[in-house]
Amino acid sequence: MSWTLKESDFNRENSITNGNKFIIGNGYMGYRGTLEEYTKEDLAACNLSGLYDQVEGKWRETVNAPNGLFTRLYCNGELLHAKSSEVLSHEQTLDIKNAVHGRKTVFKSSEDISVAVSSERFVSAEDLHMICMRYKFKVSKECEIIVQTGIDGDVWDINGPHLENYKCDASNGVIFMEASTHELNRKVAVAEVIKSDFRTQGIGFYDKQVFRSLKFCCEKDVEYTLEKVVCVYTENDVENPLKNAINSCAKFLYSTYEEKLKKHQQVWGDKWKRSDVKISGDNEGQFALRYSIYHLLIIAPTHTEKASIPARGLSGQVYKGAIFWDTEMFMLPFFIYTDPNTAKNLLMYRYHTLEGAKRKAKEYGYEGAFYAWESQDSGDDACTLFNVTDVFTNRPMRTYFRDKQIHISADVVYGLWQYYTITGDLSIILEGGAEVILECARFFYSYAYYKPQKQRYEMLSVTGPDEYHERVDNNVFTNTMVKFSLEVALKVLDILREEYKDDYEKLMFKMNFEKEINNIRDIYEKIYIPTPSEKSGIIEQFDGYEKLEELTLDELKSRIINKNEYLGGGNGLATTTKILKQADVVLMLNLFKERYPMDVKKKNWEYYEPRTEHGSSLSPCVYALLACHIGYSEWAYKYFSKTATIDLTGDSKQFVGNLYIGGTHPAANGGAWMSAVLGFAGVNFKNNSVLITPSLPQQWEEVSFYINVKNQGYFVTVMKDSAKVIADENNTETNAFYILDKTIIC
Amino acid sequence: MSWTLKESDFNRENSITNGNKFIIGNGYMGYRGTLEEYTKEDLAACNLSGLYDQVEGKWRETVNAPNGLFTRLYCNGELLHAKSSEVLSHEQTLDIKNAVHGRKTVFKSSEDISVAVSSERFVSAEDLHMICMRYKFKVSKECEIIVQTGIDGDVWDINGPHLENYKCDASNGVIFMEASTHELNRKVAVAEVIKSDFRTQGIGFYDKQVFRSLKFCCEKDVEYTLEKVVCVYTENDVENPLKNAINSCAKFLYSTYEEKLKKHQQVWGDKWKRSDVKISGDNEGQFALRYSIYHLLIIAPTHTEKASIPARGLSGQVYKGAIFWDTEMFMLPFFIYTDPNTAKNLLMYRYHTLEGAKRKAKEYGYEGAFYAWESQDSGDDACTLFNVTDVFTNRPMRTYFRDKQIHISADVVYGLWQYYTITGDLSIILEGGAEVILECARFFYSYAYYKPQKQRYEMLSVTGPDEYHERVDNNVFTNTMVKFSLEVALKVLDILREEYKDDYEKLMFKMNFEKEINNIRDIYEKIYIPTPSEKSGIIEQFDGYEKLEELTLDELKSRIINKNEYLGGGNGLATTTKILKQADVVLMLNLFKERYPMDVKKKNWEYYEPRTEHGSSLSPCVYALLACHIGYSEWAYKYFSKTATIDLTGDSKQFVGNLYIGGTHPAANGGAWMSAVLGFAGVNFKNNSVLITPSLPQQWEEVSFYINVKNQGYFVTVMKDSAKVIADENNTETNAFYILDKTIIC
Repeated sequence: MSWTLKESDFNRENSITNGNKFIIGNGYMGYRGTLEEYTKEDLAACNLSGLYDQVEGKWRETVNAPNGLFTRLYCNGELLHAKSSEVLSHEQTLDIKNAVHGRKTVFKSSEDISVAVSSERFVSAEDLHMICMRYKFKVSKECEIIVQTGIDGDVWDINGPHLENYKCDASNGVIFMEASTHELNRKVAVAEVIKSDFRTQGIGFYDKQVFRSLKFCCEKDVEYTLEKVVCVYTENDVENPLKNAINSCAKFLYSTYEEKLKKHQQVWGDKWKRSDVKISGDNEGQFALRYSIYHLLIIAPTHTEKASIPARGLSGQVYKGAIFWDTEMFMLPFFIYTDPNTAKNLLMYRYHTLEGAKRKAKEYGYEGAFYAWESQDSGDDACTLFNVTDVFTNRPMRTYFRDKQIHISADVVYGLWQYYTITGDLSIILEGGAEVILECARFFYSYAYYKPQKQRYEMLSVTGPDEYHERVDNNVFTNTMVKFSLEVALKVLDILREEYKDDYEKLMFKMNFEKEINNIRDIYEKIYIPTPSEKSGIIEQFDGYEKLEELTLDELKSRIINKNEYLGGGNGLATTTKILKQADVVLMLNLFKERYPMDVKKKNWEYYEPRTEHGSSLSPCVYALLACHIGYSEWAYKYFSKTATIDLTGDSKQFVGNLYIGGTHPAANGGAWMSAVLGFAGVNFKNNSVLITPSLPQQWEEVSFYINVKNQGYFVTVMKDSAKVIADENNTETNAFYILDKTIIC
Repeated sequence: MSWTLKESDFNRENSITNGNKFIIGNGYMGYRGTLEEYTKEDLAACNLSGLYDQVEGKWRETVNAPNGLFTRLYCNGELLHAKSSEVLSHEQTLDIKNAVHGRKTVFKSSEDISVAVSSERFVSAEDLHMICMRYKFKVSKECEIIVQTGIDGDVWDINGPHLENYKCDASNGVIFMEASTHELNRKVAVAEVIKSDFRTQGIGFYDKQVFRSLKFCCEKDVEYTLEKVVCVYTENDVENPLKNAINSCAKFLYSTYEEKLKKHQQVWGDKWKRSDVKISGDNEGQFALRYSIYHLLIIAPTHTEKASIPARGLSGQVYKGAIFWDTEMFMLPFFIYTDPNTAKNLLMYRYHTLEGAKRKAKEYGYEGAFYAWESQDSGDDACTLFNVTDVFTNRPMRTYFRDKQIHISADVVYGLWQYYTITGDLSIILEGGAEVILECARFFYSYAYYKPQKQRYEMLSVTGPDEYHERVDNNVFTNTMVKFSLEVALKVLDILREEYKDDYEKLMFKMNFEKEINNIRDIYEKIYIPTPSEKSGIIEQFDGYEKLEELTLDELKSRIINKNEYLGGGNGLATTTKILKQADVVLMLNLFKERYPMDVKKKNWEYYEPRTEHGSSLSPCVYALLACHIGYSEWAYKYFSKTATIDLTGDSKQFVGNLYIGGTHPAANGGAWMSAVLGFAGVNFKNNSVLITPSLPQQWEEVSFYINVKNQGYFVTVMKDSAKVIADENNTETNAFYILDKTIIC
């Protein structure tokens, strides 16, 4: 079974999508799948996690580090470049087992000399600050070759320039560059060292570049090799990033590329051991699923609690490098089941950004924690009030993502509670989670209104997941999630009060919370949750949804005048219709499936499915998940394919309004894992045990994977009508598994 | 002092605006100021009050009756028509003292014959179903003349055709046409009779026309005269409209035009006796004000409680011939003070449409009475959810006029209470007003939300007068008006309980209202009324207004791409800024001036004035009124001029989006009267007495008028620093007047 993505069909137009498709990374940084000779014009970038910068009047976003892999080759003075030279053959590969990028190109120079260039690179999983490359070339005829390689600090920026005060130098064979960010003056340092079997000719220093030039006479048919290591540090990591980068590079001189690669591969071996999902009977699905998991692994912040995963991973600055609900609701389950430490990091990020969430609540006149719709380092909201451009007038369009998607706070609570219940690790509650949960509950109480006429609390003027319908009342997803959050808050209070009296009292004092408890209980008891219509079984997505225009998706699309026009917002085509951007009621039913009878779930899936435009990459997996549960596994497979191949096909929306939104789709990747494990294999954590209800698609004979529950590991194999679970030999405790009416304790 | 509007400067392009400018009417019907030879192409129309029709899929609107005045003249076979023939001279006049339209045109035929045509017409104030015309002509050279005159049933319709099943016939010298409306099958009949000093040649019957042709040899320099009477009845008025129309016409054969004119003039003399406002020192202002009053007089429904005044008067079908808050808030004061019977008619219309208001509340899930934003015969809302077209995409634009302008119910209550307090006529309360008021209070309670965090009721997601900001929370105008309505409801309950025990009990039983009383009291006590900022004194128009973009009106206008683009709605240019469509806070301050200190009123006037776009013709008079009160009488004069001349200049907005909104502006006309009497003269009814606080503009020496208070008449003359009041000799009681610190009982 192949673990390699390969593209041999060279198409110059693909440089941007391939940058996403062939990306490598290690959670600290992502290096786009561009070729060594590329620059910012082709969106070459080394995107840093957790380092943000803002230039006045522009959007705040992540920073791209100077590109230390930059390498160009000249043959008798002629630049060989994939975008401009004659290419005899070209192959780009991504080994997802080892997270190694490969490239083989045979150029033909204007003097008819064939020059074969191949390279291999990885962003080290062992040393997160290191990128390693091996670059080889061979010529068909003796000629003068210049290899220009070094650090290109003229980086791709969407809302930059973010770096300034560039300093370049070289010492003891290491060349390096330091620059600082514009807003917070954080230093970013990149150092580079090479090993080559040919002589260094000189180092050139330019404004934002430092390049080595290796000039020599290249013999015919001899393969020359250049090994290169790049180290990246920022002031977010260490006090003196430059020193660290230089030292780290210098050490490489006592090591080899092979050695570094081996260590990197070992770490990746471990990653796959706990993360792989094996499918029998579906090679295509297998690769797409692994490729999805690969994407989650290269962006996982295994090393820090201070960063989480941006909506476009580490593929660039799109969506401001910001963290959305995508992480908690679409990626977190994968990490909870396969890498609880990283899952905890992701959640602790929300604790570390609690102050930002409190500032946001206060800004809007509320109390508690209103988490950022687009969260960055401080937790303040990076989302702008005008987040889309109207293609008809070129004017910024007022959107309400920032103001009204209050479900984000509930999503955080949901994630915390999922982590706690599945891992059993109460530390998440004690080390900050409780405070987050209670601040969110406080926020919801302050947001809510009481409707005397109906004697209930309502959540008004919110935007649910279906962002095409902004500022609606009583969105059922939102209200249900809010009620769940309140329930969690009351449970957490009980746990602390009963078992951690000191923590409880400290927290109550710190938060001045005791006066809130009755309020929380009151709103929990009286919050309005729309129920299924007695006649149709349909749950109305929000008050008045039923009265919106009924039309088919095709009819809606036939009204589109400009292909990039935003379907939501003030005058959007979908705004006044029943067409949804993405799963909303269906997502709620999937999360709270135990609360609704099967026929309600079926009816609602069937009702909302044709009305969903899937304008978000988050949508298909939700339809897959609920489809598995209601027994529509072939429908589910269609949606699984959609979510699992999104970054392979590159077919996703590239523009909303005039805004570029390309990049990778980690939420869809997480959705692929969820579809396979929680959907088809039917893993469901309920009442402190694991329920397994297989719902495999026709062609799947079996699916097997490793999961971690209550700090115990299990090898799970699920077949059409059965499943087996084998406890890891290192397990210290047992858990209950309910597999198709049978209970197994192991 | 002139009472005549005259236009001698013939401009063929003005046919539409002159149709509005030279309009005549009598409350039952309006006849546009078009020329006799005009047809629907030039918007000739006889617009009927209170008769509505809807064609499937189009807007419901008033019906135009067949045009019985239609008259054309042929000279040696050549049609003489102001739009196509050579015109040597032309004069159009409107005698506003007598409501008589005049026209004098000298045509030159292609054979060089001068033909002088003159006509005079009036819509009778004595017999509301009658239109009379005298048509004269004289030729410079003997020629064959054909006068074609009769009934043109091919009427101007915006959303028609409304009339069908046309039947035409003639009998005993009367020709007539009957047709029925499309939706409700209501018959409309028009009959016509002429008296002429030349022979009738024949009558021609066409599809939707019946014309007489008078053909004869016309002598040089002899004036020929045709007198014509047209009678219009509908099934709204009588069981057999055709019979009534014919009989009414037949009677004219025993009468003369002069006789009819005299009676008409007598009635108009009476109208002006109670309505005129005389200004010394300002001829232009005087005419504009009288012209404004004229417009109110020609549309006043003196004859019925079943119709009220549409927003464009009787000038056509614009705005669906619907009744808006314009009537209660901008026209009613004029009628209360000068013609209480008609004021009562206007208010009783709201009682007669109460069921429609209850249906609307129910439709939205509320209780009580939510009055129609655009009210017609049944009180159901004629306002559509897509009331504007987006000029950039040509798509209908979702607007929230219908859903969110809940202040309309409060405006009705305000009007009722104004009438009751100023006239002292409790019959309005006993004959239906109480029920209206209590149903409105019930509606507000059902609409309101309680905010536990702040322990107050709030009115959420409303649209105030400033329609550029839809779906806002706690609009101060709305909240204040709601609180006022609740106060009125409690007062009405007290009055009935104490003085009309039987009525009280009947009403409580009918309405099942007793259980509501505590709710009404609770919301009255706890409803949130935004207060002036302690720092700036500014009252925020609604929650979050302060955070909107600050820019000048000129800056906003410089962003306009299409001159007809709507500035409000989802993506409107003003929507996200502080620019208002019309007075909102300032209107509230004017209505409740006694509740705020002078410096707050000044600060808010100064703050909101530059931020107001006056996109509604209702806006300027409000600025004039409060400007008078705060001593800015020169500013007030500027706004008075704007409101008083709107139908003279024809400078008002003609389009919003792609929607034609031309026509007359009775609310602005009412605003002109209010500016003069309630503003400059400073009449203010307070604590059961009349306060007079002069604030005359520089050039006004004095202003005098007649007002009716508590069923007693007074001649009031207001000078710069004094005022005198003379009781009508027929008065039976006295009232208190407070004039600049002095009290007069007279």
